[in-house]
Amino acid sequence: MKIAFLLYPHVTQLDLTGPAQVFAASGAELFFAWKDLAPVRTDATLELVPNATFETCPRVDLLCVPGGPGQVRLMSDPLVLRWLADQGQQARWVTSVCSGSLLLGAAGLLKGYRAASHWNYREHLAAFGALADDGRVVHDRNRVTGGGVTAGIDMALRVLALTAGDAEAQQVQLQLEYAPQPPFNCGRPELAGEGLVALARARLARQVAAISASA
Amino acid sequence: MKIAFLLYPHVTQLDLTGPAQVFAASGAELFFAWKDLAPVRTDATLELVPNATFETCPRVDLLCVPGGPGQVRLMSDPLVLRWLADQGQQARWVTSVCSGSLLLGAAGLLKGYRAASHWNYREHLAAFGALADDGRVVHDRNRVTGGGVTAGIDMALRVLALTAGDAEAQQVQLQLEYAPQPPFNCGRPELAGEGLVALARARLARQVAAISASA
Repeated sequence: MKIAFLLYPHVTQLDLTGPAQVFAASGAELFFAWKDLAPVRTDATLELVPNATFETCPRVDLLCVPGGPGQVRLMSDPLVLRWLADQGQQARWVTSVCSGSLLLGAAGLLKGYRAASHWNYREHLAAFGALADDGRVVHDRNRVTGGGVTAGIDMALRVLALTAGDAEAQQVQLQLEYAPQPPFNCGRPELAGEGLVALARARLARQVAAISASA
Repeated sequence: MKIAFLLYPHVTQLDLTGPAQVFAASGAELFFAWKDLAPVRTDATLELVPNATFETCPRVDLLCVPGGPGQVRLMSDPLVLRWLADQGQQARWVTSVCSGSLLLGAAGLLKGYRAASHWNYREHLAAFGALADDGRVVHDRNRVTGGGVTAGIDMALRVLALTAGDAEAQQVQLQLEYAPQPPFNCGRPELAGEGLVALARARLARQVAAISASA
């Protein structure tokens, strides 16, 4: 199975690296595509290296679009949206993590589909004709979208179960020792309380503002 | 807070990228250190770029050692073990993910400490004078070690709670929407059953053998 990830400056790296680990563990061929091959700085300092450009990336079986503060620069970038639309229209599976679903939406790939997104950005899905769904992983026909950041791991395991069968997904889940024990019970706004949500919203807004200002 | 990750060829990238996302979200300064600055290929195809060498990396507050098939080449590498020992002896916190705890052990940093590891490698901890513990996150004095791969996220959030307080760790957990919903209940060998464990062990052995053969 050939899989392409959109890899762009200030992507939230775990949006990409979580699913990449799941799919790699199952032997998929992974393409990390951007406009050029220079290392790309993520939101976590760490630089990732594209191994394909939009021109050299082959047609893939599965497209995965991660979110992140850097995507504010891409929402009307014709090169990016054209590549997403082109890959997405022919791929067997179209997936996203976090606010990456808004990029799928901007590329015209979510009209009439139910979709997930990071809790702080979910409301924007409607602008693209998508039906916002608060599920952690939302599967509608060949679209499988995940909620915020860490939901990419759950999303990828679900997709692996759909494409390679439950036994393969279970083997990968065991290999990655995915039996999570979060230290707190606050990973969604309805669990976290208003004070924590307000603080997290403010921090996320500062991230996006910093990227917008530097554009 | 300054944090250094050991970044080496054929590291399991999620061992590193999970905690890196957690610590970055809290504003830590991250160093990804290796012998040189050339891009490093991980076990998931993806290349990560070191931003420090062993010479240029400053003394850090927290050391984090990820595991992965490539570590078989490092278990008696004097440059690597000396850097780990040097950083580990002065750091306020010494941490690992997955089989990275065996590297901590080889560097002499776990003698008399309880420690976690990936379920498939845990038994080797005793050879380094460590006390193998099957916890997902094991905290013994200033050592905090995680189980396999995805346990790095739980480990980092626990460390963040210890170093920056519960409120900060909770905010990061919410920001990363960490309310996991694994698709199966098989992320540990005692949950998975013998057949699945045998398959996963065989696949992991093939990974390590491939790395050893190419060394």
